[in-house]
Amino acid sequence: MYTFGIELDLPFEAAVDKTIAALAAEKLGVVSDVNVGDIVKTKLGEDIGNYRILGACAPALAKRVIDAAPSAGALLPCSVVIRSLGEGRTAVDFMDPVTVLGLARSPAADAVAAEARAILDRVCAALKG
Amino acid sequence: MYTFGIELDLPFEAAVDKTIAALAAEKLGVVSDVNVGDIVKTKLGEDIGNYRILGACAPALAKRVIDAAPSAGALLPCSVVIRSLGEGRTAVDFMDPVTVLGLARSPAADAVAAEARAILDRVCAALKG
Repeated sequence: MYTFGIELDLPFEAAVDKTIAALAAEKLGVVSDVNVGDIVKTKLGEDIGNYRILGACAPALAKRVIDAAPSAGALLPCSVVIRSLGEGRTAVDFMDPVTVLGLARSPAADAVAAEARAILDRVCAALKG
Repeated sequence: MYTFGIELDLPFEAAVDKTIAALAAEKLGVVSDVNVGDIVKTKLGEDIGNYRILGACAPALAKRVIDAAPSAGALLPCSVVIRSLGEGRTAVDFMDPVTVLGLARSPAADAVAAEARAILDRVCAALKG
């Protein structure tokens, strides 16, 4: 699979806050934040509900990926989707770096991806708590 | 391959400006902008040169991907890497949406990816001019 994640019994904004805190606890910074729900509403006049894509980045890991394959930054940052499921529930989907960085066919990138996946697994586990 | 792109005989900032203009001409908005060079310098004290990852998004295409597979936003937005090659030259690498969205194994997402690839091919061709 190309994503893994969790469904939370939390409304959207609380789930966003909890996700950002869990990422920060693992030293992952949020380097981008695309509010797809707002963009679709503004540009298309359609309502898809709350839907945001955060970009998570560990600088040391990003540098190792880029050192291994300069164009592999096109597979970064690691996207984290937060989306409303309705009825006070929210899904958090993490891009699986092992699958996505695997596209680069670089053993060095694969090694970084495995480390990143382990970190994101801890983030996901923290969200369960 | 998971990326395609071009090397430009332009210094970094001029290449960034030209890329953003070429994306805009194809109605692709820049919805995120991660300055990896600055982040690595600030957080790690290392100099990897100019390196930015723009996130390009066409709202109608993004909505179709999400409609097809709600978690597939984890493969969005489409990253565009702009990086210095030295001596006044700059590389622009586009994430290939056909390869990356192909991970979602959704015929509807594949159809969007083919359209997005055609648009990005035109952007890349415009950068050559």
